[in-house]
Amino acid sequence: MDSADLVVEGCTALVHTERDEIRFVDDAGIVVRGGVIVSVASARETASTPAVQRIDGRGQLAMPGLINCHTHSPMTALRGVAEDLPVEKWFNDWIWPIESNLTDRAVELGALLACAEMIRGGVTCFADHYFAMHRVAAAVERSGLRACLGWAFFSSQGPEGLARSLDFALSVRGAAAGRITTALAPHAPYTVDEKDLARTAVLAREHGLLVHLHAAENAAQTENSLSRHGRTPVQVLDRAGLLDGDLLLAHATGVTEDDIGLLGRAKGRIAVATAPRGYLKFGWDTTPVRALAAAGIPVGLATDGAASNNTLDVWESMELTALVQKSAERDPTWLTARQALDHATVQSARAVGLGGEIGTLAPGRRADLILVDLTGPHVQPLHDLAAALVHSARSADVRTTVVDGRVLMRDRRLLTVDVPAVAAELGELLPALTRRVAGRRIQDYEG
Amino acid sequence: MDSADLVVEGCTALVHTERDEIRFVDDAGIVVRGGVIVSVASARETASTPAVQRIDGRGQLAMPGLINCHTHSPMTALRGVAEDLPVEKWFNDWIWPIESNLTDRAVELGALLACAEMIRGGVTCFADHYFAMHRVAAAVERSGLRACLGWAFFSSQGPEGLARSLDFALSVRGAAAGRITTALAPHAPYTVDEKDLARTAVLAREHGLLVHLHAAENAAQTENSLSRHGRTPVQVLDRAGLLDGDLLLAHATGVTEDDIGLLGRAKGRIAVATAPRGYLKFGWDTTPVRALAAAGIPVGLATDGAASNNTLDVWESMELTALVQKSAERDPTWLTARQALDHATVQSARAVGLGGEIGTLAPGRRADLILVDLTGPHVQPLHDLAAALVHSARSADVRTTVVDGRVLMRDRRLLTVDVPAVAAELGELLPALTRRVAGRRIQDYEG
Repeated sequence: MDSADLVVEGCTALVHTERDEIRFVDDAGIVVRGGVIVSVASARETASTPAVQRIDGRGQLAMPGLINCHTHSPMTALRGVAEDLPVEKWFNDWIWPIESNLTDRAVELGALLACAEMIRGGVTCFADHYFAMHRVAAAVERSGLRACLGWAFFSSQGPEGLARSLDFALSVRGAAAGRITTALAPHAPYTVDEKDLARTAVLAREHGLLVHLHAAENAAQTENSLSRHGRTPVQVLDRAGLLDGDLLLAHATGVTEDDIGLLGRAKGRIAVATAPRGYLKFGWDTTPVRALAAAGIPVGLATDGAASNNTLDVWESMELTALVQKSAERDPTWLTARQALDHATVQSARAVGLGGEIGTLAPGRRADLILVDLTGPHVQPLHDLAAALVHSARSADVRTTVVDGRVLMRDRRLLTVDVPAVAAELGELLPALTRRVAGRRIQDYEG
Repeated sequence: MDSADLVVEGCTALVHTERDEIRFVDDAGIVVRGGVIVSVASARETASTPAVQRIDGRGQLAMPGLINCHTHSPMTALRGVAEDLPVEKWFNDWIWPIESNLTDRAVELGALLACAEMIRGGVTCFADHYFAMHRVAAAVERSGLRACLGWAFFSSQGPEGLARSLDFALSVRGAAAGRITTALAPHAPYTVDEKDLARTAVLAREHGLLVHLHAAENAAQTENSLSRHGRTPVQVLDRAGLLDGDLLLAHATGVTEDDIGLLGRAKGRIAVATAPRGYLKFGWDTTPVRALAAAGIPVGLATDGAASNNTLDVWESMELTALVQKSAERDPTWLTARQALDHATVQSARAVGLGGEIGTLAPGRRADLILVDLTGPHVQPLHDLAAALVHSARSADVRTTVVDGRVLMRDRRLLTVDVPAVAAELGELLPALTRRVAGRRIQDYEG
């Protein structure tokens, strides 16, 4: 028998049935070779499999690594810089003035800090949407994470914006030993005009690229779009041809019933990323997950950037999606713990365009998995394992994080990012980064 | 100079000004003697203070221990037993049938597990409301926590219910070297009749006792109370004389504007405990914190029991209070991080009747404090310390928990509760505890 690269044994494994239902297998053994899961069997069967590395998973649960379907990893450098503000002031008085000071080094250090936070929180893949993305790609390479990267642009940048986004997407896809996929990344329908959106749609189809953008972030944006264009943001995207290709919409808290119908009937593979923490904090509605589910639209979990969301804790996004959806629908029987786990696994993988590669522990899938401690007093006793995961366990209970079969954190020890060094160097850059000059900002918010 | 029992030095300290505003003191030193804080000074000043025990607090923040203002600690044994249900089914089909099987040992083990969870989450004091409370008192004694304990009763139990609640309150107050205070604990206005509520009010005044009960848990209870009695739950309490004494109301999500006026004008010291996680999960409104604040009513943070809330994580209650209040008021500028910290400290201490003893790090106060790690990648960089605490840090970042000057957890190691032993013994009791017999339950929910 060939030696495996990694065997995890004695854990409980969260697996999916052929109908994507979640099932828990006790005393499981997971065999990894060449970055791929070879088998998920009983620990008895794997006990005799020789392996370069073995992990004792007793008292722990193995599950697919979490996927952050929409974030801005370098904005971790701005965590807490602009608090308790409405979105207009947040953008115009703080974030967009500060972002006129961005440097490549600040972007890379912010992204590295984000990668460290995500690895510690059990995230194995993230969809990132920002500037200077070649430096984010470097952070992904170094950290060992998987990522879908898009270089953001505004129409105010002229034709160079889209050109750079395309150039990045084409030149970087497949980097980091295939862990990096790419997307075209128009900022939003309120900052990218219809002509540029239509060109994006054409280029995306021509090059087989996902398009990742903000849309209908809140109800006010939908109202403003209607009064400006006579069309909702989703109708604008439709008219631009973006619904005919692969599309990842961030937030969509302001979509109408008609919009959801349009998304459901679209030719392209459409998905939505929900980041519920920020909607609470800004006082917005939340993503209408129930209506999107009824229309067959996958909804992946996300955190947005740490400058608004304060955290890249996808585990919390899973918990809050369960809680906030129950609250929004006024229905405690809706969005059960198992449904939340479905969003965290299969639906999130589909959302970032990797539905065939990740999101479930099964032979042939990439070996992106995490081990979660189930022995803490805050998780015991275990009457209901799905509820324990969604409602009692915390991101800090993730003990081990594995991507492509490589261990990035073991027993809470980070193996690829030196946090004190990154935080110290970033700290030195912060005074220059956060200096605001009156009238200088990268864009105006009139969403 | 007398030797101190404990010196914590080099930390950042969260202190309150004379006007109860929150201030952060860098490189602080905290001196504890006889269970009391003697001084909060600079680390330079405390460096020469001899002490039995010293804690290096560098990279950490010292703050008052969190206070869980309303819970049912033994229900930790039922964490996850009844999920994704409306409150009627939760009570009538699961919780009240199961509670007919309660044994003293199950209560004590559930409470011990709860104490372990709370110590690990930075909770130093909790207000508990349950049955067999002599066993909870034993768990408090053993764990080293501080607690305000009330033995719950229904009118369906006859006069014995109130008599037992009173007997417990009088015989146990001052136990555990003074760490235990007590309350009378009628269950709620929908399970305790007006006569018993009125007797409770008289006894509470006669014996100088706090009354701790559920009231207006949700809007439906208020409507039902109006249709049955022509009075809201708060009006029922008023008529019973309960607003003339010290009163801790759990939840109050269903209070009306008039109710809030009544509470604000009351002769007694009235406080409310908010447990926002459960309101989301049940699809209820949340506690109207802004209106209560305007009426001068302190609102303390709480988790309710783990059977509904899944966690006793008061740190999360702090975070969710900030987020959910912004959302409910549709105002991102309301309930700032500093306001959330005010609820977690000064207001929570007042809510449990210990406003003069705990809730702030100041000379003369009981030495109930926690140390929180600020070096994690999910907290860095530190642009805004209050926001970092409320929106980025997690209960798992609490490294050290001290009550009355005694260290109950040091560097994440629990020193007073043996979790594996408690969980194992509790596990053996669970099959008998959770067996439901048709028609057998301790009470009917018709709230």
